[in-house]
Amino acid sequence: MTEVPAPYEAAGATAEHVAKAELLTEMLPYIQRFAGQIVVIKYGGNAMIDAALAKQFASDVVLLRQVGMLPVVVHGGGPQIGDMMKRLGKDAVFQDGLRVTDAETLDIARMVLVGKVNRDIVSVLNVHGPRAVGLSGQDAGIITAEARDPSLGFVGNVRHVNPMIITQLLSEGLIPVIATIGADTTGQAYNINADTVAGAIAASLNAAKIIYLSDVPGLLRDVEDPTSLINRITTPDLRTKLASGELDGGMIPKITACVDAVDEGVERAHLLDGRVPHVILLEIFTNAGIGTMITHDPVVDGTDAT
Amino acid sequence: MTEVPAPYEAAGATAEHVAKAELLTEMLPYIQRFAGQIVVIKYGGNAMIDAALAKQFASDVVLLRQVGMLPVVVHGGGPQIGDMMKRLGKDAVFQDGLRVTDAETLDIARMVLVGKVNRDIVSVLNVHGPRAVGLSGQDAGIITAEARDPSLGFVGNVRHVNPMIITQLLSEGLIPVIATIGADTTGQAYNINADTVAGAIAASLNAAKIIYLSDVPGLLRDVEDPTSLINRITTPDLRTKLASGELDGGMIPKITACVDAVDEGVERAHLLDGRVPHVILLEIFTNAGIGTMITHDPVVDGTDAT
Amino acid sequence: MTEVPAPYEAAGATAEHVAKAELLTEMLPYIQRFAGQIVVIKYGGNAMIDAALAKQFASDVVLLRQVGMLPVVVHGGGPQIGDMMKRLGKDAVFQDGLRVTDAETLDIARMVLVGKVNRDIVSVLNVHGPRAVGLSGQDAGIITAEARDPSLGFVGNVRHVNPMIITQLLSEGLIPVIATIGADTTGQAYNINADTVAGAIAASLNAAKIIYLSDVPGLLRDVEDPTSLINRITTPDLRTKLASGELDGGMIPKITACVDAVDEGVERAHLLDGRVPHVILLEIFTNAGIGTMITHDPVVDGTDAT
Amino acid sequence: MTEVPAPYEAAGATAEHVAKAELLTEMLPYIQRFAGQIVVIKYGGNAMIDAALAKQFASDVVLLRQVGMLPVVVHGGGPQIGDMMKRLGKDAVFQDGLRVTDAETLDIARMVLVGKVNRDIVSVLNVHGPRAVGLSGQDAGIITAEARDPSLGFVGNVRHVNPMIITQLLSEGLIPVIATIGADTTGQAYNINADTVAGAIAASLNAAKIIYLSDVPGLLRDVEDPTSLINRITTPDLRTKLASGELDGGMIPKITACVDAVDEGVERAHLLDGRVPHVILLEIFTNAGIGTMITHDPVVDGTDAT
Amino acid sequence: MTEVPAPYEAAGATAEHVAKAELLTEMLPYIQRFAGQIVVIKYGGNAMIDAALAKQFASDVVLLRQVGMLPVVVHGGGPQIGDMMKRLGKDAVFQDGLRVTDAETLDIARMVLVGKVNRDIVSVLNVHGPRAVGLSGQDAGIITAEARDPSLGFVGNVRHVNPMIITQLLSEGLIPVIATIGADTTGQAYNINADTVAGAIAASLNAAKIIYLSDVPGLLRDVEDPTSLINRITTPDLRTKLASGELDGGMIPKITACVDAVDEGVERAHLLDGRVPHVILLEIFTNAGIGTMITHDPVVDGTDAT
Amino acid sequence: MTEVPAPYEAAGATAEHVAKAELLTEMLPYIQRFAGQIVVIKYGGNAMIDAALAKQFASDVVLLRQVGMLPVVVHGGGPQIGDMMKRLGKDAVFQDGLRVTDAETLDIARMVLVGKVNRDIVSVLNVHGPRAVGLSGQDAGIITAEARDPSLGFVGNVRHVNPMIITQLLSEGLIPVIATIGADTTGQAYNINADTVAGAIAASLNAAKIIYLSDVPGLLRDVEDPTSLINRITTPDLRTKLASGELDGGMIPKITACVDAVDEGVERAHLLDGRVPHVILLEIFTNAGIGTMITHDPVVDGTDAT
Repeated sequence: MTEVPAPYEAAGATAEHVAKAELLTEMLPYIQRFAGQIVVIKYGGNAMIDAALAKQFASDVVLLRQVGMLPVVVHGGGPQIGDMMKRLGKDAVFQDGLRVTDAETLDIARMVLVGKVNRDIVSVLNVHGPRAVGLSGQDAGIITAEARDPSLGFVGNVRHVNPMIITQLLSEGLIPVIATIGADTTGQAYNINADTVAGAIAASLNAAKIIYLSDVPGLLRDVEDPTSLINRITTPDLRTKLASGELDGGMIPKITACVDAVDEGVERAHLLDGRVPHVILLEIFTNAGIGTMITHDPVVDGTDAT
Repeated sequence: MTEVPAPYEAAGATAEHVAKAELLTEMLPYIQRFAGQIVVIKYGGNAMIDAALAKQFASDVVLLRQVGMLPVVVHGGGPQIGDMMKRLGKDAVFQDGLRVTDAETLDIARMVLVGKVNRDIVSVLNVHGPRAVGLSGQDAGIITAEARDPSLGFVGNVRHVNPMIITQLLSEGLIPVIATIGADTTGQAYNINADTVAGAIAASLNAAKIIYLSDVPGLLRDVEDPTSLINRITTPDLRTKLASGELDGGMIPKITACVDAVDEGVERAHLLDGRVPHVILLEIFTNAGIGTMITHDPVVDGTDAT
Repeated sequence: MTEVPAPYEAAGATAEHVAKAELLTEMLPYIQRFAGQIVVIKYGGNAMIDAALAKQFASDVVLLRQVGMLPVVVHGGGPQIGDMMKRLGKDAVFQDGLRVTDAETLDIARMVLVGKVNRDIVSVLNVHGPRAVGLSGQDAGIITAEARDPSLGFVGNVRHVNPMIITQLLSEGLIPVIATIGADTTGQAYNINADTVAGAIAASLNAAKIIYLSDVPGLLRDVEDPTSLINRITTPDLRTKLASGELDGGMIPKITACVDAVDEGVERAHLLDGRVPHVILLEIFTNAGIGTMITHDPVVDGTDAT
Repeated sequence: MTEVPAPYEAAGATAEHVAKAELLTEMLPYIQRFAGQIVVIKYGGNAMIDAALAKQFASDVVLLRQVGMLPVVVHGGGPQIGDMMKRLGKDAVFQDGLRVTDAETLDIARMVLVGKVNRDIVSVLNVHGPRAVGLSGQDAGIITAEARDPSLGFVGNVRHVNPMIITQLLSEGLIPVIATIGADTTGQAYNINADTVAGAIAASLNAAKIIYLSDVPGLLRDVEDPTSLINRITTPDLRTKLASGELDGGMIPKITACVDAVDEGVERAHLLDGRVPHVILLEIFTNAGIGTMITHDPVVDGTDAT
Repeated sequence: MTEVPAPYEAAGATAEHVAKAELLTEMLPYIQRFAGQIVVIKYGGNAMIDAALAKQFASDVVLLRQVGMLPVVVHGGGPQIGDMMKRLGKDAVFQDGLRVTDAETLDIARMVLVGKVNRDIVSVLNVHGPRAVGLSGQDAGIITAEARDPSLGFVGNVRHVNPMIITQLLSEGLIPVIATIGADTTGQAYNINADTVAGAIAASLNAAKIIYLSDVPGLLRDVEDPTSLINRITTPDLRTKLASGELDGGMIPKITACVDAVDEGVERAHLLDGRVPHVILLEIFTNAGIGTMITHDPVVDGTDAT
Repeated sequence: MTEVPAPYEAAGATAEHVAKAELLTEMLPYIQRFAGQIVVIKYGGNAMIDAALAKQFASDVVLLRQVGMLPVVVHGGGPQIGDMMKRLGKDAVFQDGLRVTDAETLDIARMVLVGKVNRDIVSVLNVHGPRAVGLSGQDAGIITAEARDPSLGFVGNVRHVNPMIITQLLSEGLIPVIATIGADTTGQAYNINADTVAGAIAASLNAAKIIYLSDVPGLLRDVEDPTSLINRITTPDLRTKLASGELDGGMIPKITACVDAVDEGVERAHLLDGRVPHVILLEIFTNAGIGTMITHDPVVDGTDAT
């Protein structure tokens, strides 16, 4: 790739120009394949906190949109909520790994998710043009929630997704960025696990892909061994793993959401390491085969690279 | 109105039914006059803080929408920002009545405005159905801001309003609720005076009315005397008042925004007392003549009741 | 409702203003419930003859349209036809309560219905703006008729309703006013019972409501006793009554049309006393519970006020 | 045209088939020229009274529509109004050739025009399919009228034409048939000269042609001599004739309406003899050159056949 | 038809004008019947080679379009391909009546069909206005082909028809003219029998009619006897004839395509003699009953003339 | 670019993956800048003849479309016409560098351009999906031509461009490929210089760019010296050069077309060397600055890279 063929040189093109032109051409089949399809991206972890990674994430999402895909960003913000609670002198209480959410905690959670995290994502996307629109699950009734367990307070489950406004924004060329607050029919707000919301939204939109960005390389056979990555797995196999109890607790909502989304019609779910720069582009436009891909049926090697 | 005419009685209708039917009929000319027109409402003061007033505000706004008007809500949230700063142990610094806004203050302001105040308004509106959508001025590039004065930090002026997404949401039957955060072309956020933003948005939308809700009866000839209310005034006269320096400092941004909005094509601006229950309905659907109405030209009595 | 709360007084609002604002607010749930739904109104009796009642009827219908409902007016005009026949020295012949209609009678009927009654209704509605459009069942093939009984001459039955042009006019914001003349496939006109036509049109439009205005309080248990009003009844019970022969002859076409319309999908049929001012508004926007409401299934008290 | 060429004969085609095929082909340039253009037809005289001519008129109008033109029919009905007045024992009073129209006369006129004449035209057109829709100038505010002269009573002038609903019906494939009753802004109806209304509607629709059907061959140089037909004349020349007072009184409203319509942008006005079968088709699809054609500028012979 | 009725004469209309007006009127039912329906015309034989017939064909097709039908022209060009091969000194090789098509022959065929025959048809149609658009089966993927038999080279079968672009052009008022070259999924072109393509396109478009123009009067009972024309036949009877082997070899692809098209939903297929001037108009607009009509079920005489 | 940063390696990404992801990101500003803009490409020279270059050209054009630009391909085919004439034993006659075109030559030219060259381009593009549609200037009246000079025969000038069908095909996601045959109003075809047609089409479409691909590096100061490339030049300067007679004869139509197109509103014209692989991508997506760019006003370095 580093030698410059004669005609390029005559035209004053450098090795870099040559490489770029060739790579662009290689992108074509991937662009064609995903044109007009919805990709839901659950954004979180270091990719959301590290400023450089966040900038790359933003330009990657905008690029997906520019080449004809329809990205939807869903995010939570647990650490940011925790920080704000600490600053406000409010103790966090957890029960089975879930934050017990009283009215004040809900207020803080909502404020941080919608007023800070969501805004930061919209800002960094809109540097590339007025494309991103921040939403919470309460807007235009996107997420109807219900209490998960009275003892957890305002922690909600998704009861229903109304994707109407998301679809409208997509059709107007915009990029929806959704904070995972929902409301029940009385208007009471709930904080809902973002992994779960992302899966439910992807299913309601018939998305082609859902991508979970986190700080692990994917699903590991052995949590301690990062080289034990499982590249591909089917939802029946994952259900077996979920039932067996062998999965790491932190992965369970994500894995459950993946399995549900795929079983409700999303073609592929991907667990990617958000610390890898441009990991979304690598997944979509190259045959790098990084992270873990989850499908309903086994994918035969060679028939389909991504 | 309290006597029941014979035929009503025969039909089992009470005095209340009679009154209701007659009042509905009186509404008709007002409904016809404002059908399809945009009304921007700057929401603030007690009407936003008092829970009962907030509920009434919500049902009033939804009613406007239901009878064919197109309400747009714009809000700030100075007191709520102040509260949060206090809770976080951050001192507020003011200069010429404007909050000096460093990066941390901006972060708090944005979080409170977008994540708390805006959400509360959306919630109370959506009790009536999935109609309200919360936006900040950063979404889809609604407000392009610029620094007002370097010594004030991230306090912004409105440089440009792009009403595209507001218009789209209105045409889909939704009610936009806008928090007054804007961003410059690099994505840097700014906190902007909500009175000013409301006026600029009304002008960009060619609104028929802009309504400012606050905790005073309107523009008073004598600030100390609540009976000195000015019912109607023209923008040339207001410009004279502004130039004379006789206006109360707190009213200046509001008055300036009114004058600018009317001079850029908004038909009427109204300063209303948000502590009066259903004050918006009174203004639009009755000839009560409350608050102060600002127009470009004098309105001849009798030609037009509102 | 007659005391003026403090804040209103301060704002210069009277008891009447207060009452109006509160009543408007009470309307909201009714408006929301019927927004975008079709209401067919069979107009007749005193409400059509008394000029003051006709004006109120007109402003009520326009109000329904303004708050988002889709009214369709259907009318006959027996008394007006009788008057004109008398003026022209033509004897009316009745057979089983139906007017025997020879060619000349048909001509007079059509002329009076389409050229006088329909026009009067359109005129009084259009005082409120260019909204009403007069149609006869012959226009754009709305009603395909067939002879009812050779011995009755040109008295028709409804064979088919083509609601296409009604739907188009509704979608353009107009109010269709339909005279109940139909034609068979050869173009021969027929006069058809207006109660029957109204029901058939309501069924073809999937209307939410059909309202029959006449000069009786509703369906009475005892025709002689106006206090014996039946407030609610189901179509199975009405069918039983129809079969029993206990119903007053004049009510039979109306009742049959109600039963058919409800059984073909119209949610509710109402028999209302058109002599009661604003009786349509009372029915739709209050819980007065006047007249007789006919539904397919019993309505449980408390679940639904209208 | 009566000999059958060899290949036709072999195929079993007769002389009539041959003639038909050739004539169809000759129509093509005329069809192409008028496709999508509006033709207003003022219908009246014997063509409206003679049943055979009325049937031919109907099929001619439907044919225009089928080959892509947009016909609009406007009609009066003076003789029919006179008949009904006689039957009702009401004396007709004329002043300067205009019927003095008191409230009762107006009522009769409206009833006859809208309820009889208009209906008859719609009926005969709709034998060919559900295409025609009867309208009066009051529907959806088509004609805003004003009193012509207090001493004439409810005889109106056209103040304004709102062609919106006509345009909508045309775009839905329908044929509007308009009775020339208008209303002023208070809803008061007026009877208006149909020739005048036809011209005003043609001008408001930017019609390509307006055709007046009456019982004379066209404009005659000498009213007594039917062979003195003027084939073509310009509006400046007609204005001279109108000013000179040499025109027959009965022709003046028609001629004035023609001149006004052409001067406001209608390309051509035609005065045709409605007693000639299919005279509209002859005018549009052949070079017969019958009747009188009125244009703004002289038409050079040979450049344009119709 | 040759005598001129009195009123015509008075208006200066000749016998020819009279005949024309009457014939136009007779067309009306045929126009109404076929309005908006698709007619696929397989164009070929002398009608394509004889300049006078070609001109008539063009004006007939444009006339169909003008009166509201949607014609689609499909053509081959065997003789023209043969001529060009001869001029280029390339020997034609036939196998079972099909041209063995090597790469060079394909190149010549494509060039002649798309570059000459198609262009000539578009040119002669566009003399009447910018309506015709030439297409080959390769454009926008209209025809997906596959090899018919390896020993025939690039002779293709139709595997799939994608009528999308044809439908779009029709909806924009254009007349598609299609050369019967297809391509397989690798882009390799194939020459395909035009009779077959026409049938497949008609089926994919749900055409009302497919018309085959050739140099024989239709389907003959006895090929030697042109008076043995079969006027009507059903597809079951034709299948029997195809199975019996009694049909002339040259007719087999045409007959097979007719049978397939009718059995896949095209209402009627017609075999017409293209040497008869205006034969398409005769078939569609008269009851001449020329050529052979193929339907699925027998057509009862008298119920339907064409 | 060849070192793999740590996080990539962990994720199993190679240097090539890294390079690809980064290059994709660099494309973003270029994609954003040209989204939705029309680029007319005059295709010719070696890039059309060399199979490998033709394939690259095709995938480049499809890529432009995929990332949101609207490419239109215009082509001639002089050498291919010459070849076919030679094969048919027809002598080419040139006069002032233009092919004297008698009827037979026109026939051959049209056949080769539309039936061979145009088809080959459509084929190679449609390997990527059913996107390309071949057109000649005669289709739907795109190019109205007129004779250039009687002594040249059927060599035409562009008199008018009607871009309607091009715009429609673009809006349906298709890629128009246009052969430069036009017709005059009588339907007579003409062969027109493809450089001229490309410029006229670009002007009629308000294209953002017109790109001329040929076998020279661009405009050279000294035709003999390929290193004397002029990188940028304004149309006033080019007009001076054209007037001075110093330009190479073969370049004159191209240069004139460029100047005309830019002066009629096309933003930029580019003369590129079609022998350079992916030269279109290099021009649009990199800052290589190859070939000659022609603008109306001088472009200041640094403000704009392409």
